[in-house]
Amino acid sequence: MAGELWPSTEESYGGRTMEEGRGKTDRVVNHVVYEGSEEESERQEQQQSSKPYVLEDHHFTIETETQRGRVRLLPKFTERSKLLRGIENYRLAILETEPQTFVVPNHWDADGIFFVTRGEGSITLVHQDRRESFNLRCGDILRIPAGTTVYLINKSNNEKLVIMTLLQPVSIPGHFEAFFGPGGENPESYFSAFSSSLLEAALNTKRDKIQRLFGQREGIIIKASEEQIKAMTHHEVGGGICPFGGESKHTCNLFSKHPSQSNQYGQLYQVDPDECRDLRELNLAIGFANFTGGSMTAPYYNSRATKIAVVTNGEGHFEMACPHLSSLEFGGSSSSRGSHPQQRRSSGPSYQKVSGRLSRGVVFIIPPGHPVVTVASKNQNLQIVCFDVNALNNEKFPLAGRRNIINQLSPDAKELAFNAPAREVDEVFKNQEDEFFFEGPRQQHEREH
Amino acid sequence: MAGELWPSTEESYGGRTMEEGRGKTDRVVNHVVYEGSEEESERQEQQQSSKPYVLEDHHFTIETETQRGRVRLLPKFTERSKLLRGIENYRLAILETEPQTFVVPNHWDADGIFFVTRGEGSITLVHQDRRESFNLRCGDILRIPAGTTVYLINKSNNEKLVIMTLLQPVSIPGHFEAFFGPGGENPESYFSAFSSSLLEAALNTKRDKIQRLFGQREGIIIKASEEQIKAMTHHEVGGGICPFGGESKHTCNLFSKHPSQSNQYGQLYQVDPDECRDLRELNLAIGFANFTGGSMTAPYYNSRATKIAVVTNGEGHFEMACPHLSSLEFGGSSSSRGSHPQQRRSSGPSYQKVSGRLSRGVVFIIPPGHPVVTVASKNQNLQIVCFDVNALNNEKFPLAGRRNIINQLSPDAKELAFNAPAREVDEVFKNQEDEFFFEGPRQQHEREH
Amino acid sequence: MAGELWPSTEESYGGRTMEEGRGKTDRVVNHVVYEGSEEESERQEQQQSSKPYVLEDHHFTIETETQRGRVRLLPKFTERSKLLRGIENYRLAILETEPQTFVVPNHWDADGIFFVTRGEGSITLVHQDRRESFNLRCGDILRIPAGTTVYLINKSNNEKLVIMTLLQPVSIPGHFEAFFGPGGENPESYFSAFSSSLLEAALNTKRDKIQRLFGQREGIIIKASEEQIKAMTHHEVGGGICPFGGESKHTCNLFSKHPSQSNQYGQLYQVDPDECRDLRELNLAIGFANFTGGSMTAPYYNSRATKIAVVTNGEGHFEMACPHLSSLEFGGSSSSRGSHPQQRRSSGPSYQKVSGRLSRGVVFIIPPGHPVVTVASKNQNLQIVCFDVNALNNEKFPLAGRRNIINQLSPDAKELAFNAPAREVDEVFKNQEDEFFFEGPRQQHEREH
Repeated sequence: MAGELWPSTEESYGGRTMEEGRGKTDRVVNHVVYEGSEEESERQEQQQSSKPYVLEDHHFTIETETQRGRVRLLPKFTERSKLLRGIENYRLAILETEPQTFVVPNHWDADGIFFVTRGEGSITLVHQDRRESFNLRCGDILRIPAGTTVYLINKSNNEKLVIMTLLQPVSIPGHFEAFFGPGGENPESYFSAFSSSLLEAALNTKRDKIQRLFGQREGIIIKASEEQIKAMTHHEVGGGICPFGGESKHTCNLFSKHPSQSNQYGQLYQVDPDECRDLRELNLAIGFANFTGGSMTAPYYNSRATKIAVVTNGEGHFEMACPHLSSLEFGGSSSSRGSHPQQRRSSGPSYQKVSGRLSRGVVFIIPPGHPVVTVASKNQNLQIVCFDVNALNNEKFPLAGRRNIINQLSPDAKELAFNAPAREVDEVFKNQEDEFFFEGPRQQHEREH
Repeated sequence: MAGELWPSTEESYGGRTMEEGRGKTDRVVNHVVYEGSEEESERQEQQQSSKPYVLEDHHFTIETETQRGRVRLLPKFTERSKLLRGIENYRLAILETEPQTFVVPNHWDADGIFFVTRGEGSITLVHQDRRESFNLRCGDILRIPAGTTVYLINKSNNEKLVIMTLLQPVSIPGHFEAFFGPGGENPESYFSAFSSSLLEAALNTKRDKIQRLFGQREGIIIKASEEQIKAMTHHEVGGGICPFGGESKHTCNLFSKHPSQSNQYGQLYQVDPDECRDLRELNLAIGFANFTGGSMTAPYYNSRATKIAVVTNGEGHFEMACPHLSSLEFGGSSSSRGSHPQQRRSSGPSYQKVSGRLSRGVVFIIPPGHPVVTVASKNQNLQIVCFDVNALNNEKFPLAGRRNIINQLSPDAKELAFNAPAREVDEVFKNQEDEFFFEGPRQQHEREH
Repeated sequence: MAGELWPSTEESYGGRTMEEGRGKTDRVVNHVVYEGSEEESERQEQQQSSKPYVLEDHHFTIETETQRGRVRLLPKFTERSKLLRGIENYRLAILETEPQTFVVPNHWDADGIFFVTRGEGSITLVHQDRRESFNLRCGDILRIPAGTTVYLINKSNNEKLVIMTLLQPVSIPGHFEAFFGPGGENPESYFSAFSSSLLEAALNTKRDKIQRLFGQREGIIIKASEEQIKAMTHHEVGGGICPFGGESKHTCNLFSKHPSQSNQYGQLYQVDPDECRDLRELNLAIGFANFTGGSMTAPYYNSRATKIAVVTNGEGHFEMACPHLSSLEFGGSSSSRGSHPQQRRSSGPSYQKVSGRLSRGVVFIIPPGHPVVTVASKNQNLQIVCFDVNALNNEKFPLAGRRNIINQLSPDAKELAFNAPAREVDEVFKNQEDEFFFEGPRQQHEREH
């Protein structure tokens, strides 16, 4: 597992232009494909049913993109649906840089959690009196406090560096910006917003000299020579400044402990907020699930956390039960619930099936309380990175397999709850002996109505 | 006081159909009734003046209702008024179950505080590896963490179990849903949202057997036999699992300590967040006021807490002074305050009288800082259950009676504040020797213009 | 520095009527004045560019104004712009009272931080069983918890008492009101909202007597005799009640420690939340900057805090770089960023110059992450009071002068970041040897295009 969460494949987004990206997106079908003559209308139905919980490549904005790399950012979640208000103040960005590149120094008005999903690099945090540098390798988790100027190096000769970042704005809920100091026209420098006379006085330097310095930039992600990369590494260590090292007390690594779930069908790695200070301060957990081809998770739900899941490899699909969609957004029979008092729900809430096809780059959201199942396609492993927002005291409740909560009901409660002998309940809920990861359905879901 | 907060009366809502409920509601008049010819127009004025702080039976939605019981839920407070934004993320639900019934297991995407106002029962919280059961009796306070599957039993042979619940959604501000696992069509089960092939694989069981199990439900609140109730109790204790008991460290009871106020006119019981861990985590206090017929409270205000008060018995009325109504909602002369700068308030804020008639089932809201008086009608005791939101460090400031804050002004401050000799101030503010609960007005308020 | 932060000058607002105030406001020009024929259009451009970060005298509402003093309140910041949502729940009020006056007791549904910027007085907090009094002198910082009834005395014979208050509403986000008990028509008393019969019963006093007492008020800020002021002081001490005193453990003073920055060009005094319990609970810092005429600050930014700055004396201007204005409000080329996915920013964010002229009474807002420079006009000292919201763990990052963060980049990082030899970077960023306060530009900014 010390490999890569975002492996290089023929389909890699790395060198593609935006147009190619769009082309590919069109081919990705965001729902379960049904067979038969009613396929098309059902496809539309299903497409709707995946909203607003599934986001694809074309939902991202391209913040920057050159031959050297790119930064993609998901829009504010509440622009998709008010159902996502609970995570309004979180934004997901994905940085991909080519080998031997340098990301120029910048800061944001947001706290950020970096999670390295591929490659190896280094990051430097610039403080008033010193700088701190950290080696980055796959699985590293690092918090960048709001306002801290950072720069990044992909120091590999042949591999991309990919970092997923969850950002929490500190000023305007759901909005943040990057602030570049060194720069000029590309990227624009914030120094350029000041009058020349002020800069001249502040820097005690003639304006010509200043203008010369700020006119020379060539983009946000740029080529660094092997010598420069070595020198930067050497400097850090040689200078007695905080040395590189994944062992630093500030860095957690997802793979430094055993998986919390592991069997022949899959493994789940997770770092909880109480295990890592950087995560605790933002009330986040980070996880990585690796499914063997053809396997699935138990149906389960999280008690408090909202999961933002990003598929990094493979294909599959998920199904989720959602009572809010009908009651809040699509005007179902219980839409009156909030607004027209003294109305009556005959028999409690109704659960809409949310489903979506998963493939590399798809983002899907699992709100707390919502039962969900994820299934890997047979042909290859399915790999998913998860950011769990509001993770403190979160519990994961499995609904099937060993240790499922139905088995914890007392016999008489089972009898009353199911209106059936407890023995019949057990015959259904005690057959599955695996835990969390199971052998998947024999016919893949696409076959079935 | 170990009796019931929600006693059985002829007017009990329990066995009534919704139509009867509506009929009754029409007869409840939500304001002070004036005598004389101008009565009607004044009634309308008053009706408006109770908005948005008074909610009645007809404002609730019926979440479920059968012969066995019902669940009623107040809409999001901000659907009534933006003045209630401070409690937007709190929802009040009232559960009433008939004797010897079972509420089927379910969880919510909300934290809940249960407060038992009548009857006796038991509740079981289902965890991954165990279950926890608690006896419930009048006055018990219990926190149900978001996502925890629970089931409830009314184990009495002849008495209703009534539980008031304040819910704090964890995902969508102000919105939550119930999630039922065991079920089928009534209640719908969240398992039904999943494809058969997925369930088949997850449960390692043929779909026919699964479908049979999930097709047999008969509602959310169902009849339990005496044997089943005994067995469930016996199981819990006999199984060595966390035994029943109000003595459990997790349960606080409102009546386990002396009332904070008590005299011949009334008693006030209250549990503050620093006295009960379950309340502290949600920053809530719970109180119960019992007024002797014809008595009243001091005018007083809470410093930080917003009070959500539910009348459980008796009749009366309240009056409250509110400066926000005129400035924010009803376009009074100072409505310019927020939006048209450089305008002038000649002499500070203006206080609108908010008043409302209180009877069983009426809910009224007292925001922090707002002076309020509650008066019991002469014929019977008035009883009120209170949830205080934002209760940490709240102080209650009485404006009359022993220990009122006017008496704490220095003599010269009294003189300056009232533009009158301090002696005259004392002659008004030192006459009432009782504390908090007073003898009420001799003519009831209805008589007076 | 133990002097006054809001000194008396010919231009003092103190004795002026509101009309004079308006007149003055018209003459204050809220932007940089350009010379030449294009002046007017550029002026308009600049005026727009200062929005929404600059507020002037005419933006305040007059809450009360008499010969004895006045209270001014800034509207909710979000009424200006959604860019200010991060400080929506903070309101700035300024109280000015003439010598020997008394502010009648009142409370608010908001937490308040008082900061004394001129004069000397005393304040009394009224609790249920006691009262607490504090001497107030320039620089004192005092938290008034929500709901606490307070009264104030300006005990000087010849000097105004000026208090700036940052209020944090506890009930309705961004809104609060004052509640006056003693009063009648001016100010209206909250007692007046209650029915006479209720007051009669509550106070156990005939209504005539009550009405007499409440009919005698003469305003919110009133004249107190020298004897009354002495008596109130004497009473407090003589009565054994919590004695007056700036030494009280509850009061912090901004000038009790050394300035955090100090040289010939200026001094910065600051109390951080971890230095003062009253500030910690509201997550605020308070600062005071004194610029020598003609000096300036380094360009710098705060990492987490939003600064609400009030000019108390002198003149000058500021410049700030803001990437949000173009992307969020004024529909610039990157406005698509939030709402139209799969669009592309060619070269990162764009920074709009925000600038504004500073003079006594102007309020300006500096969001976190935003680089800013403040410059004092040559003729006199410029003095600014700052409330920093969200100040816990805030860091101030200077971009010029000794200890600027550019100097902390490693040589190779400088080379890559600026695409220039590290030596050339150092020639620009190591010339300024002063720290934070610098000699200002030789030609004042107005001269320059």
